[in-house]
Amino acid sequence: MTGELLHELRAVVGAEHLLTDRAVLASYETDWTRRWKGRATAVVRPGSTDEVARVLAACNRAAIGVVPQGGNTGMVGGGVPRAGEVVISTTRLRDLEPVDDAGEVTVGAGVTLASVQAHVRAAGWDIGIDFGSRDSATIGGMVATNAGGIRVLRYGPMRGQLRGLEAILADGRIVRRLPGLVKDNTGLHLPSLLAGSEGTLAVVTRVRLALVPQIQRSAVALIGLPSLREAAALGNRLRRRLATLMAAEAFTTDGLKLVIEHLHAQAPFTTFHGAYLLVECAAARDPLDDLEQSLAEEGPTDVVAGEDEGTRRRLWRLREGLTEAIAFAGIPHKLDVAVPIGRIGDLAEQVPELVTSLSPAARCVIYGHVGDGNLHINVLGLPPDDEAVDDAILRLTIALGGSISAEHGVGVAKARWLEADRGPVAVAMTRAIKAALDPKGILNPGVILPLRPGAPGRR
Amino acid sequence: MTGELLHELRAVVGAEHLLTDRAVLASYETDWTRRWKGRATAVVRPGSTDEVARVLAACNRAAIGVVPQGGNTGMVGGGVPRAGEVVISTTRLRDLEPVDDAGEVTVGAGVTLASVQAHVRAAGWDIGIDFGSRDSATIGGMVATNAGGIRVLRYGPMRGQLRGLEAILADGRIVRRLPGLVKDNTGLHLPSLLAGSEGTLAVVTRVRLALVPQIQRSAVALIGLPSLREAAALGNRLRRRLATLMAAEAFTTDGLKLVIEHLHAQAPFTTFHGAYLLVECAAARDPLDDLEQSLAEEGPTDVVAGEDEGTRRRLWRLREGLTEAIAFAGIPHKLDVAVPIGRIGDLAEQVPELVTSLSPAARCVIYGHVGDGNLHINVLGLPPDDEAVDDAILRLTIALGGSISAEHGVGVAKARWLEADRGPVAVAMTRAIKAALDPKGILNPGVILPLRPGAPGRR
Repeated sequence: MTGELLHELRAVVGAEHLLTDRAVLASYETDWTRRWKGRATAVVRPGSTDEVARVLAACNRAAIGVVPQGGNTGMVGGGVPRAGEVVISTTRLRDLEPVDDAGEVTVGAGVTLASVQAHVRAAGWDIGIDFGSRDSATIGGMVATNAGGIRVLRYGPMRGQLRGLEAILADGRIVRRLPGLVKDNTGLHLPSLLAGSEGTLAVVTRVRLALVPQIQRSAVALIGLPSLREAAALGNRLRRRLATLMAAEAFTTDGLKLVIEHLHAQAPFTTFHGAYLLVECAAARDPLDDLEQSLAEEGPTDVVAGEDEGTRRRLWRLREGLTEAIAFAGIPHKLDVAVPIGRIGDLAEQVPELVTSLSPAARCVIYGHVGDGNLHINVLGLPPDDEAVDDAILRLTIALGGSISAEHGVGVAKARWLEADRGPVAVAMTRAIKAALDPKGILNPGVILPLRPGAPGRR
Repeated sequence: MTGELLHELRAVVGAEHLLTDRAVLASYETDWTRRWKGRATAVVRPGSTDEVARVLAACNRAAIGVVPQGGNTGMVGGGVPRAGEVVISTTRLRDLEPVDDAGEVTVGAGVTLASVQAHVRAAGWDIGIDFGSRDSATIGGMVATNAGGIRVLRYGPMRGQLRGLEAILADGRIVRRLPGLVKDNTGLHLPSLLAGSEGTLAVVTRVRLALVPQIQRSAVALIGLPSLREAAALGNRLRRRLATLMAAEAFTTDGLKLVIEHLHAQAPFTTFHGAYLLVECAAARDPLDDLEQSLAEEGPTDVVAGEDEGTRRRLWRLREGLTEAIAFAGIPHKLDVAVPIGRIGDLAEQVPELVTSLSPAARCVIYGHVGDGNLHINVLGLPPDDEAVDDAILRLTIALGGSISAEHGVGVAKARWLEADRGPVAVAMTRAIKAALDPKGILNPGVILPLRPGAPGRR
């Protein structure tokens, strides 16, 4: 059966794009965090929409699970195989169409964020999404996970940038709408439904993006504060004062020290503070004046600010270096949660106590997009399969009125907490929609919805 | 059977909120355009989420169609009964919760847009949606239709303002997520799916809105231009130049003359032009300077501009008076279409020729949100049931790469063109999702998807 399927897939994509060598498969089988890994039957690398459609039709006939994979920068195990699925790598879908007059562009699912940025900036536009893994993360994966990042405060997540898409259903049917329209109100909005569906409803092959005007001038400030509670509160006050605010990021001294050590960077202040808030404002006129005036009125004393590229880079590096610095220190359990903005302080204070009580040797590094209520909690020093700490943190988040995933998605990592978070009716709706669009359950089995016995992922 | 259902509904909402008197029903049976009307078995006015749930459960057991209705300001027949459905009026769901620190608010589905605006403005915030029928249109209807309006250019449509919602499924189950979270990436985003579903998947009862900072200063300009083609092109150039642009609206001399006559208003210029572009910019600092400088560089000569409230009102009145002035002149066929921004000129030139060729006595008034590629085409002097002109305009729009509905929705008015616009796979997906969530097909039968024989709407 598998042999027959592989034969069929080889006929679609050509022998060089059907990978079955175990050594070659390895890099597709483990994700970026190294916490999630599994075994793939094969990796198939289709080179066109039509090839993706034929690959899916073949897998659907064979009722074998498929895992769509882009840049493999996911954090929740949603882009790596679990148990013998076929991985569909989208990285050969690399079309970059010209940016049009109205500020839209159509790109292939396998194009990286950095490539899209370079392409649209050359035409005088920008994309409203940015984050650290821009050199690897692909547009298709960004749609599937409804990617967030450091500009969500200003432009919203990936779902809001979508003007259209082309995707392949489980049975190989192609749904395509890449219209170049600002407004299009003709019934159900499939781009919004597929954004965040994590490869469980369709495989995205092309995307129509709405671009944003390029930022002409921006100013950055790093502010030392006693704790994440104060950092979140200041971030929220600035959000209301400054219509020009683009980002409000916070981290703690623990994280800062890891970054300084890993990057051999300089400490930003002569003394260390409990927490740091990094803010960025963009405006056509005098963003630094606006920012400094607001900060002067808000009263924090330890502030570094600037509008020059050097200051911007130096300060952002302290924030963007965190992911890598933490990964260098070990394999973290990463919990990306959101709470109402007023509860960030409670979460930030209770999580370290909770971690220490459950696992005294573990170490907890917290940072996040505090303007969005989003904290990234990294717990180092836990065995990969020990979920007691994860469970306690996720249940605390739910108790504080929060969400178990702010931006990474549910993946397999959080599927078992989905119902506690979303409630039984939302989960039943999700199951009904999944069954309607993918009746054999071949698309990314075990992701978002926990696997049921007998599903394609169980083999 | 109907008697039993009415008895049951009366027990849920109380006798005074179950309306069956034919004279009282009349205002619920005809929509604002007067083009769409039908017969209701009854109108039920539930006063709480729980009552909506029980009403739906009863109708689902009886397999009788229901039509959710808010302010009844729809244009496409989606909010009025067709053939004996039960109308669920949401106007008693009028909760207005306090605006929170993070700039979010939860409101009942029956609250009007104007009430929400007054409520949130008193707290120093605003809602990113605005349009002429603000005194009647309800938040629930705005979600169901994914309402657009005059601020879409800046803030996107209603879908983008939703942080959560509470809704009732066809069988009476309640799905609720009103979390006060900026980011929430836990699988399928039900608010985005229900936005624009036009009451066919669930009845929205409460909505969690993300608010926007209140505009401190704004400047308005009206520009006289040779044609809609030039107006659209200038609007698009200004969109790129001015990050502060909030609106770019255009209309023609035909429309302007109707408004001047209807409102006894003054003509804005000493001579009439082929078309007019109305733009608004908002900025903390000197919006009028920005706007005038950009216009000086773009070169149009007939410009009226101002930052004072009097000028703002006077110029906006010319645009906002159009709907009413047209309705005063007759019952229009209203076609609300979108095309890629570069094709607006083609559409605006070809439509009047097409109308004249098909119906020489008909009169065509075109205006629209040209910044969004959205034209509202109003054809006066056609019999209500004559769809030949509608058909020709919609097919022309599709041929130009456009959409049959930019913002009004599909309703019953455009259901038969849905497949020509969206294609068979998207329609099949829509049918599959509809069947999964509303297996008996009781929710707004005949809206978006054309009715099939034997469906609840056919009786």
